Amino acid sequence: MHTITLQDYDIKIGDFRALLHRLLSERNYTKIAVLVDENTRTHCLPTVAEVLHDFNYFVIEIPSGESHKNIQTCTEIWRQMMDNNADRHSLTLNLGGGVIGDMGGFCASTFKRGMDFLQMPTTLLSQVDASVGGKLGIGFNHVKNSIGVFNNPQTVLIDAAFLQSLSEREIRSGFAEIIKHALIADAEHWQKIRQIQDLKTVDWTAFLLPSLKIKQAVVEADPFEKGMRKALNFGHTVGHALESHALESESSLLHGEAVAAGMIAEAYLSVGNAGLSQEEFTEIKDFITRIYQPAPVAESNFSELIHLMRKDKKNAGSEINFTFLEKIGKAKINGSAEISEIEASLKSISSDS
Amino acid sequence: MHTITLQDYDIKIGDFRALLHRLLSERNYTKIAVLVDENTRTHCLPTVAEVLHDFNYFVIEIPSGESHKNIQTCTEIWRQMMDNNADRHSLTLNLGGGVIGDMGGFCASTFKRGMDFLQMPTTLLSQVDASVGGKLGIGFNHVKNSIGVFNNPQTVLIDAAFLQSLSEREIRSGFAEIIKHALIADAEHWQKIRQIQDLKTVDWTAFLLPSLKIKQAVVEADPFEKGMRKALNFGHTVGHALESHALESESSLLHGEAVAAGMIAEAYLSVGNAGLSQEEFTEIKDFITRIYQPAPVAESNFSELIHLMRKDKKNAGSEINFTFLEKIGKAKINGSAEISEIEASLKSISSDS
Repeated sequence: MHTITLQDYDIKIGDFRALLHRLLSERNYTKIAVLVDENTRTHCLPTVAEVLHDFNYFVIEIPSGESHKNIQTCTEIWRQMMDNNADRHSLTLNLGGGVIGDMGGFCASTFKRGMDFLQMPTTLLSQVDASVGGKLGIGFNHVKNSIGVFNNPQTVLIDAAFLQSLSEREIRSGFAEIIKHALIADAEHWQKIRQIQDLKTVDWTAFLLPSLKIKQAVVEADPFEKGMRKALNFGHTVGHALESHALESESSLLHGEAVAAGMIAEAYLSVGNAGLSQEEFTEIKDFITRIYQPAPVAESNFSELIHLMRKDKKNAGSEINFTFLEKIGKAKINGSAEISEIEASLKSISSDS
Repeated sequence: MHTITLQDYDIKIGDFRALLHRLLSERNYTKIAVLVDENTRTHCLPTVAEVLHDFNYFVIEIPSGESHKNIQTCTEIWRQMMDNNADRHSLTLNLGGGVIGDMGGFCASTFKRGMDFLQMPTTLLSQVDASVGGKLGIGFNHVKNSIGVFNNPQTVLIDAAFLQSLSEREIRSGFAEIIKHALIADAEHWQKIRQIQDLKTVDWTAFLLPSLKIKQAVVEADPFEKGMRKALNFGHTVGHALESHALESESSLLHGEAVAAGMIAEAYLSVGNAGLSQEEFTEIKDFITRIYQPAPVAESNFSELIHLMRKDKKNAGSEINFTFLEKIGKAKINGSAEISEIEASLKSISSDS
């Protein structure tokens, strides 16, 4: 069992069962609301329920997927909390990926003005990314995470056993954040990552720990995202726009797939705006393209995508805010770029070049 | 100009204009969202707009009344914030009573995970009560304030000039919290309050300051409402139930009217459960009855009211939690009562006895 100690809570990595039982025994919560979707109900809840059996719990199931991370689903979660007489001395246990963690944490933080919540991320993406940082929220008006709060969980329990039920596509999506953490802060880790040939044979725990530590260092230096924490937004200005746009159309794009494409575009912009070398850009693009084979972005969507970037909450005023790379392993926050360059960067997302 | 300095912000009492101008000049917000209802748009916005004229502001108008303090109205506020390109470096200025302050503060605290907000309470109730304590929220599923967060405003500006446009009924409603503060913590102030014959001739500033100081002392001792802050709930367990019930029926009941009736019921319960003397109960009941002339509660509503009390967020588990009076000027938290006593206390709310 590994422990990463953050300022206000711990991340525990390993078999969750003994730990969860001890934590619930100590805390004596009036109720435990377990938030799942149809996938984690099937694949993860059974082992968790063996522990919960000794406590007063109820299950709230919501439909999986980013498109349900909205105020209507929150309303349903709050209603079930209320119908089950949850109170501010209860606990919400979020058993699922980022949607469950972000939305369940938001609902717990706002129900009766706040109860404890516990994160049990079950996807690679949420294990590496959403479990650190206290950013909770939902999408609103077609903009991701635009309503939310900063609040910390009671504890984060990460058990790699949950990853076994994931598809290769979901693993690949989570992997994007591992790539990002290396690119913004750890050139050595990037070189290890580049050696990966087949995502199916990776021992993820070995990649999770360094990634979690990078995120921890950045977040603790800047808990309210006033400055350096923006380094974590690398790939996300373009990535969020691609993801929001996909939500509105018929195409499906996982968060990490969108961020992977966004990292190519923002690495492209880094060459002209932050001094990234052409060689390192090519190294980044080649690796990401080999793993993700991103689809080219249609030029007819450029103006809508730029419109979505303008609405990003990272912006101050009307300028679009980017995090760039000075070199692999070193991020530069608060960058900006011309619209024509942004369009060119969208063109750079393509397998053939 | 009086200043009450709290741990994280100041309350300023007096003419707001020079102060507001200085504060906005110093802060350099990207946008100012001014939240009003149809009443404060007419009666209060014009003088505020004279100051705002020098800054980048827009107005969001919502319908007045507790029944609109819900997630649908929040959705509309968030949408207008987004349409006007507000961001986390913007300010929300809440110009109105408790509904505006609580809901506007909640929307500001959750939009893009939180922007600053400034409270300018315009009713006696919100000036004396809602302006201290950081409790923000909305009603949900027929339960008042069941969704919300704790968060502090940038500053509270209290200007008694805004009270001139209020009806006598609204003044009377706000007066209930002034009575409550005296009953739970200041027997001397209670004796001054008892001398009041006519609410129309009162100099409210003289009553606001002691009341705000009582609330400040209680809240600062217990910012997250784990213990003594519950003293402020005196009158509110029954009061909230009466208010929630009135919301669902045709009858209208202002918050302070409900709390006034609730204080009679909870003073009645205090006699048997906390040692309040029969004489002091009669003194309390007589004064409140003279000012408020509360309507008797129909016995057919008792079970629904008790059901609503059970759903109160102050409860831990299934027991209904009360704050009682040991004597005038001294509260006792975490009381409980038999259902039969609660029914008797509801009967005690009556002008004829």
